[in-house]
Parts: sequence; structure tokens; C-alpha cells
Amino acid sequence: MQVGILGGGQLAQMLALSGAPLGVVCRCLDPSPDACAGQITELVVAPFENHDAARQFAGGCDVVTYEWEGVPAATAAAVSEVTRVDPGVQALRIAQDRLDEKTFFTKLDIATAKFASANSPDELAEGAKALGYPSIAKTRRGGYDGKGQIAMSQPNPSAWQHLGEQPLIVEERIAFDRELSVIAVRAQSGEMATYPVVENRHLDGILSMTIAPAPHLDAEVEALAIDYVTRIANALDYVGVLSLELFQVGRSLFANELAPRVHNSGHWTIEGAATSQFENHLRAILDWPLGDTSAFGAAVMLNCIGKLPAPQDVLAFPGVHFHDYGKQARPRRKLGHITISGSNTDALMPTVEKVHRLVAGW
Amino acid sequence: MQVGILGGGQLAQMLALSGAPLGVVCRCLDPSPDACAGQITELVVAPFENHDAARQFAGGCDVVTYEWEGVPAATAAAVSEVTRVDPGVQALRIAQDRLDEKTFFTKLDIATAKFASANSPDELAEGAKALGYPSIAKTRRGGYDGKGQIAMSQPNPSAWQHLGEQPLIVEERIAFDRELSVIAVRAQSGEMATYPVVENRHLDGILSMTIAPAPHLDAEVEALAIDYVTRIANALDYVGVLSLELFQVGRSLFANELAPRVHNSGHWTIEGAATSQFENHLRAILDWPLGDTSAFGAAVMLNCIGKLPAPQDVLAFPGVHFHDYGKQARPRRKLGHITISGSNTDALMPTVEKVHRLVAGW
Repeated sequence: MQVGILGGGQLAQMLALSGAPLGVVCRCLDPSPDACAGQITELVVAPFENHDAARQFAGGCDVVTYEWEGVPAATAAAVSEVTRVDPGVQALRIAQDRLDEKTFFTKLDIATAKFASANSPDELAEGAKALGYPSIAKTRRGGYDGKGQIAMSQPNPSAWQHLGEQPLIVEERIAFDRELSVIAVRAQSGEMATYPVVENRHLDGILSMTIAPAPHLDAEVEALAIDYVTRIANALDYVGVLSLELFQVGRSLFANELAPRVHNSGHWTIEGAATSQFENHLRAILDWPLGDTSAFGAAVMLNCIGKLPAPQDVLAFPGVHFHDYGKQARPRRKLGHITISGSNTDALMPTVEKVHRLVAGW
Repeated sequence: MQVGILGGGQLAQMLALSGAPLGVVCRCLDPSPDACAGQITELVVAPFENHDAARQFAGGCDVVTYEWEGVPAATAAAVSEVTRVDPGVQALRIAQDRLDEKTFFTKLDIATAKFASANSPDELAEGAKALGYPSIAKTRRGGYDGKGQIAMSQPNPSAWQHLGEQPLIVEERIAFDRELSVIAVRAQSGEMATYPVVENRHLDGILSMTIAPAPHLDAEVEALAIDYVTRIANALDYVGVLSLELFQVGRSLFANELAPRVHNSGHWTIEGAATSQFENHLRAILDWPLGDTSAFGAAVMLNCIGKLPAPQDVLAFPGVHFHDYGKQARPRRKLGHITISGSNTDALMPTVEKVHRLVAGW
């Protein structure tokens, strides 16, 4: 089977690596000739705006998917004239626009931070005033890893300019206890499975650590997370892996962001679950049976951001799995990740602390 | 890191797939442009006898290894002028010649079937008579998967001709209870680790099933297997993964064959052990710390020989991992394998039986 992937970063790379043993051959489309998936797959280099190139790329593919919600929806739509695109273009459109996303959550009766649209400096000021402080102004499109947003603890007249004078959303800032995420996979038949809910910790707006499963998680809260992601997947008639980031406040959950793709907070599934999120995404879009999503035990995933430790230092620890994406080092860039797995979270923590020190370069 | 692999079959493919996440880039040398590792690595096509091509291939590699003992020792020796070759040329030479191999076992005081050299029809007749019947005549070089051997239950004057009129070894036929194998990995420092001893079942001379760990294995017998492989690895100052096939008769073990490489009976380690044999081979030859060789639970590996079942049929079973090497189907050819993993062997067996029926095409 031949799968086309729009985008050629580490998510495409890990999709291709999980497909290879299954006889699934992946090819990627990316504007950059250095896209790291090209190390192990065919890489077609073209700007996403070149729809002819995208349609040609899709020819001969059994199905096309995307590894990033930054891929223009128009490109996915052009590809869908040639071959099946999963998850569909609608999921991509919603995930690309924070206002549409929050509106969609609200329509599905999924709790989310209070928000307002802001198409001018005046609307931004009014919205922030109505929601109260602290609040956050975010660009509707193009923000990720903490980019394209400004936290406001009081009226901030320069925020509009700082965010590039473009359509914004302003949101109340939720004082959450912790961030969680839930990853689901939905088949063409509508069958669904979810991975255990995990806890995510960020550093400077970038995911730094995922703990799987989330420690001390109330069964009722876990059920609510699964209910939320199920509503979203069913509403979109979604096919593939879908990720939902959530804020936990006591026993309440607020949907923060959906990602219509495999997700950084699911990397631990490569070694820590019976079937990885990558394999399950391919199974779903190829209309193959979904794989078991249960975890073997506990796992902690640490992102390597801006720099990578030496492999021999990482591999000296037992139960540690190193993933080097083969990318050039750059500040704030995700260059790799490390998964530490074992029977339970407490048993892992001494190793996690040592590896974390190595990753941070202390 | 760049690793060169002499041979581009499925073992090279799985080495490359295990190296990719670690930032290890593999390239393969193979006489065939269709060599299946070429689907995911750079493939240099040249006959092994072209030593200039082999030396050029090795340039820029941090280390070169081989995936098959059929690679001419002279090629490995030529490569070793340019870069480090692990496991060394000596291991390759011994594994290539059944007489040298058996002589080597005997020197190390490792039990093996009684044997005699036969360089003529007369020597073959004398040897067989001295050892008694049933015995087996085998070509000293080039035999694998049951090729290049004839079982003799009585004097067989045509055996010499049937085996191509070449130097032979004649061996007593051991009435074994079962076949076992043990896979070890040895680092440049001399540090060693072994995977749990497994049971192997053959069909028409080709490995059909591996059960890991071997059921009802006596601790004393397991210790003997580990002792044998340790003696061999130390005697060769071996670096990398080393596999030893054994016959079990009661509480005795007889060494049958050594393979200076990753081995078909270790494929279960991809999903069933903390570190796969492929990753551990790369760790050893790159002088990185060895990984944990313990098994998570139990696993059964089934070879797909001559034909492959449809992936959607295989993946419908829980705990099943499918490996399609992307090779053209041909009778008696290993096209893929399936690993069924779980907590213990008894729990796996109902699934194993169903998958086995699928693989056999019943």
C-alpha cells in the first residue's frame, strides 16, 4: 500500500517507520528539501500552494494524510480530487482556526475557556474587558508551540500590533491544575479506541514531558475526556488518529486544542502501548482493523528541544528509548525525544530525573 | 552515525529500521537491485567479488557489519582495510564452513554431533559407516535452510554426486527432543548479555516457528546454553549479536550451528523484549551501551514462507505484529513474519493457532 503524507517532519518520519514493517510505503510532500522524513522515504519537494504538484504527488497513493494542521486546507482539498484524504478536509479547517475550533467545541457542548472574536484593536480591548484578566490574545491562525499569543494581565494596547494586526481570538486564562491530553483513533466503520489519558508539562510553551498514564487520574475525569474526544470524532466522521488537549481544574475539563493527527503527547505509544499511535493511524486510514491501544505499564516521554544529548549517554540507562529525528539543531526546535518505560510511574521517576538532567544539559 | 551492511535482505532491512530512530543511517551492499533493504536505505548494487566496490562502499562508514554468513570472507577482509568490520572476519570464516565450525565447537569443549570430513566418495562412505546410520552428509560451504544436505539411513553411493562433488562433512544424526537457540550480544568491552533461550520448529528445513521463551526449560539447560554461547563469543573476541542453534536431548545440549549475525529466531525481540536484537547489534558495533535483553512476557514468531497473508486478516487478531519484507513471492522464500505477544505462552496459543492457519493458507 502507498500512503502520501502532506508534510515531511518527524511525525511523517515516525508514520513511515511504523508503516515499513507492514508493507506500507510512505511518500511525503514538503516545501523543504531538508524535511527529515526524507531520510527514510521518498520526499517530493514543492510548496504546498502548488496544487498541481500536490495532485501529482497524490497520484498512485491509496490514501493521503497530513502530519500537520499547518498544511493549507486548499491543498488537502485539491488532493481530495485525486484520492481519498483522511482525516478529512473539514477537521483540518477547524483545527487551523482557533475561533472555529472553540466555536465547534461549544456547539458540541464541550467545556472550553470563554472566548471572543477580535477583528480590531477595539474588539480586542472590549473582549478582554468582558472576559476579565488575566486573558490571552491569540492569532486565529498559524500559532503553535506558544507562538502567536500574548498573555494579558491588564489592558495591553500594543497586543494587536505585536500579533501582526490580524484576526484574533481572546480567551479567559484558565488557572488549571494540569494539562492532559487524550488520543483517539477512529476507523472508517466508526469503530473507536482511545489511549490512556496522559499528563503533559510544558516549558516556554513547548511540550517538555508526557507522563502516561496521567498519575492519580480520577476515573470520572478520564471518562469525560474520552466522551469529549468521542463527540468530536463522531461529529467530524473522523478517520485516523485525533488528539485533544485539555485543562484539568478539579474534576472539570476544558478543551484547549484539537490536533487532527498523531501527536507529540502520543510518542510514548511506540514502546509503551500494544499498538503505536502511528501504526493505528495507518491502520485506520487504510481501512485495516484497529490495534489494541492499551499501555504495557507506565512511560514518560521527554522532548529534546534545541539540542540532543549523545546517544551513548542516553542509552546507558535501562528502559530508555532514544529517538533522534536527524534534524539540524536550532533553538526551540524539536530534535528528538526519549521514552522511559517500565511497570509503574513511581519506579520510573529516578531514571526520568537523570535523563531529564541529560536532556536539559545540566 | 553511518553503518554499512554487507547484504541487503530482510535482516539488513530490520537493522536499518531499528537504527533509524537512533540517528543511525544504514547503507547496504548487495548484488541484487531488488534487495529488500533498498526500500528504506541506500542500496549499492555490486557483486561481493568486486572488492574495489566493497571498499568504496565502506568509505565514510563508522563501522561495517554483515547480515549473512554467505558474504565472502575475502570481501569482509577487503572492507576491513578501510574501516572496522564487526563481527570480525574470523567469525565469518568459521560460520561459513561446517567442518571448521564443528572443529571449533570441539576445541571449546562444546558438545556437538560426531562428525567426519569427507573429500571423496570413499571418505563419505567410510565416515558414514564409522558414525553409523542415520547420518547426514552436508556440503562444508553454502548450505542453509535445509539446502546442501542429504539424510542417509543406509549407505548412499549417489550422495556425493547429488551434493555437487565437493568437500563434505558427514555427521551423526541426533535424535533430539527439540531445537533451541540462544542469542547473545557482546560489546567491544567484552560485556555480554543473552536473550532468553527459545524453541524453534522447522518445516521442510526452514524455520517455521519460534516460541520465546522456550516452554518448560530447565534452568540448568538454559545455563548450559548461555555457557556455550559465552565461550564462543569470548574465543572470537566477538562484537555484535551472535546466535547459536542447539539440539536438546534430555538435559544435554549439542551445538548445531552458529550464525555470526542477527537471527530469524530473534525476530520476536522487536516487540517482545526491552531491546531488540537489531538495536543491540547496532549498539554493540557502535560501541554504545548494550540494552536490556529481558523479555516482556511470551512471544511466538511465525515465518511467512512462499506466501503472505493479507495484512487486514493478520491485524484483526489482538497482540499480533505483522512484518512484510516487501519481497517478491517465490516458493520457500521468507517473505515476512508475524509475532504474537502476550503475558504467557499458554494464553497466546489460541491466537497462534488461528494465525498459523492463516499463514499456512488452510
